[in-house]
Amino acid sequence: MISYKEALDLLRTEFKPVITNISVPLEDSVGYVLSEDIFPDINLPPFDNSAMDGYAIKYNPEIRKWRLIGQLTAGSESEFTIDESTTVSIMTGAKLPIGADTIIPVENAELQNDIVILNDNAHVEFGEHIREMGNDLPIGILAVKSGTLIETKHIPILAACGQRKVKVKKPLRIAVISTGDELVDIDNKPENAQIRATNLYSIISLIKDCGIKPINFGLIKDDKQSIANTFRKILESKAEVIITTGGVSVGQHDYLKDVLKELGAKTIFWRVNIKPGKPFLFSIIEQDGIKKYIFGLPGNPLSSFVNFNIFIKPSIKYIYGKASEFHFTAEIVEDLNKKDNKLHFIMGYYEYVFALDRYFVRKAGTQSSGNMYTLSQSNCMVMFPEELTEIKSGSIVDCIRI
Amino acid sequence: MISYKEALDLLRTEFKPVITNISVPLEDSVGYVLSEDIFPDINLPPFDNSAMDGYAIKYNPEIRKWRLIGQLTAGSESEFTIDESTTVSIMTGAKLPIGADTIIPVENAELQNDIVILNDNAHVEFGEHIREMGNDLPIGILAVKSGTLIETKHIPILAACGQRKVKVKKPLRIAVISTGDELVDIDNKPENAQIRATNLYSIISLIKDCGIKPINFGLIKDDKQSIANTFRKILESKAEVIITTGGVSVGQHDYLKDVLKELGAKTIFWRVNIKPGKPFLFSIIEQDGIKKYIFGLPGNPLSSFVNFNIFIKPSIKYIYGKASEFHFTAEIVEDLNKKDNKLHFIMGYYEYVFALDRYFVRKAGTQSSGNMYTLSQSNCMVMFPEELTEIKSGSIVDCIRI
Repeated sequence: MISYKEALDLLRTEFKPVITNISVPLEDSVGYVLSEDIFPDINLPPFDNSAMDGYAIKYNPEIRKWRLIGQLTAGSESEFTIDESTTVSIMTGAKLPIGADTIIPVENAELQNDIVILNDNAHVEFGEHIREMGNDLPIGILAVKSGTLIETKHIPILAACGQRKVKVKKPLRIAVISTGDELVDIDNKPENAQIRATNLYSIISLIKDCGIKPINFGLIKDDKQSIANTFRKILESKAEVIITTGGVSVGQHDYLKDVLKELGAKTIFWRVNIKPGKPFLFSIIEQDGIKKYIFGLPGNPLSSFVNFNIFIKPSIKYIYGKASEFHFTAEIVEDLNKKDNKLHFIMGYYEYVFALDRYFVRKAGTQSSGNMYTLSQSNCMVMFPEELTEIKSGSIVDCIRI
Repeated sequence: MISYKEALDLLRTEFKPVITNISVPLEDSVGYVLSEDIFPDINLPPFDNSAMDGYAIKYNPEIRKWRLIGQLTAGSESEFTIDESTTVSIMTGAKLPIGADTIIPVENAELQNDIVILNDNAHVEFGEHIREMGNDLPIGILAVKSGTLIETKHIPILAACGQRKVKVKKPLRIAVISTGDELVDIDNKPENAQIRATNLYSIISLIKDCGIKPINFGLIKDDKQSIANTFRKILESKAEVIITTGGVSVGQHDYLKDVLKELGAKTIFWRVNIKPGKPFLFSIIEQDGIKKYIFGLPGNPLSSFVNFNIFIKPSIKYIYGKASEFHFTAEIVEDLNKKDNKLHFIMGYYEYVFALDRYFVRKAGTQSSGNMYTLSQSNCMVMFPEELTEIKSGSIVDCIRI
């Protein structure tokens, strides 16, 4: 059995799906990773323009009166030439008239007939309130780098560079199945020894939360033939990744590993020294030179949720070059105890206390490994290291946001 | 002119669109706000079951050998009754046989013919490795409260409660238009005094980022009649909110306020003592007892981006009861200066320094108010209060994540 750290290292070296590119409309591109460098095809802004509504002048500190010879609105095609004695009224964003080098804001001057008079208390500085051509970004200078995770803040500059569509890394195609004789779909009422197939919905929502549309292959009985048939179907699909829940433990009906073996899969690792989620399986099937990656999650709802968050989510983020910003430290406000030498992920609830500028964390409810209610009440996982059996209240612990 | 705080107060009291409910499939519900209390219709788990693969026994500290009388897998319908001398092999999640009260993990015992023998070093405790019926959540106890923002962590318990679809608060319908004679759509190359209509795409992506599908009414010329006609069309649509960019300044071609006046709109406020984004307009039109809300953003790309983030986003979050978790404090690492008494929102870049357990922030590039490149390089806005003209390096400043 390997450690969590060893498992993460293996995932980093072995999980290497080929990521191709797609084009998406700019307004749908937030959350994708840009796959080309973007340069402006024009200067930004494309011309010297006014940053205020006001009057365009040719600066001369001695002069406080100008004759108004015209008006320029944003987008106006009119052309005027001014000298030190003339001015043009100009709207924000409008292109400067020829000769102008300074803008007087409209509230700093008064118009009497066709004469603009600077207010007594107003002060003008050379070059004020002008946005120079290329001041935002000159033509040919890198605007947004390939590999950038697109956020809303990138949309204006991408739009200004004329990117109606952007080339981005294509989301993985992930197939999902849940195995188990005990499972009924969630709109059924379970009878006798049955339970609802919560995992399927949980994993689908987690995949979607990574910005990926999952391919749902549904519920499969704990029957070797059914599992094998479904796997063959998935392998014929375009999915590069397959996530299963159930069937990876040591029970006699845990057929998943047998099926994978028969399909020629190579187990990279199975079972990690953690709790919950120990039976996690990572396996690779190579077909015609193309690798397909299998993540086998346990059937237990909390275990599969934790496994997804500590193995699969960081792996997906890693291959897209996205930062995993979900680690933080907090002060634990109760004693923690354990007997084994596993790394425990304890569902926790953290709060930031403003007055103390610090995060505090406590356990979220009971920690039974099937406890979905506790999960719903938590907002993080507290990491309780392998080598410790006790953590005293007041200690600093590592946590992972969920 | 009102202050930012006064503007926020007015938004809280006046922005009250009617939010109805819709049903969405569970796996699509992350990000929505639940609009009913959810209770389990069965005990969770629905029966006592094994938390491990192992052997089910009736506890007696004296006994270390049992006769194996059967096998139970998860979902198995078989029924067995055991006494202190017999056992049933049991898989994780399987319903306990009658008489069983304790589970021996499979690795702690050995099977010889039909006799299960406890390992010499193994210790059994009464009641171990059993998940009791209702231990996660008993029938009839509140599982997820109405008003909860649904996250992935809620999906397992909602699935276990049989919620194939969940009733959630319906997203607002938001119409968007951009006005300006200078605007060309972004796939065109601007000529002479034209610029690309970056705002339209920026605002659409910001609305989508709030989980809302915008209704795009496109680019409109700075022409009173065109603006009025488009507004009439939008008012006939189902949009409860209208966001405009451009036309709210004091320029002669800023027709938006005139059009709104003619349509009977009531201006709640116009112009806020901030920079950038001063000309922000908030207005309400009431038609047949139904209020429609208009947010008028300036045409400047940075101003409209900032306005959306400081006015519209918190207003939308507020009416859905979602927390605004984007305020934080950081140490500024350079001096800041300003001359006016406006509240400035300065595009900043913050970093968390682990060793010092503190956030540090600096200005992101130049602060020209049309600077889209600077925006793309920032990750927060630093708030520079009205009454200050200087903030010394090393001071703690309020910041807003973007």
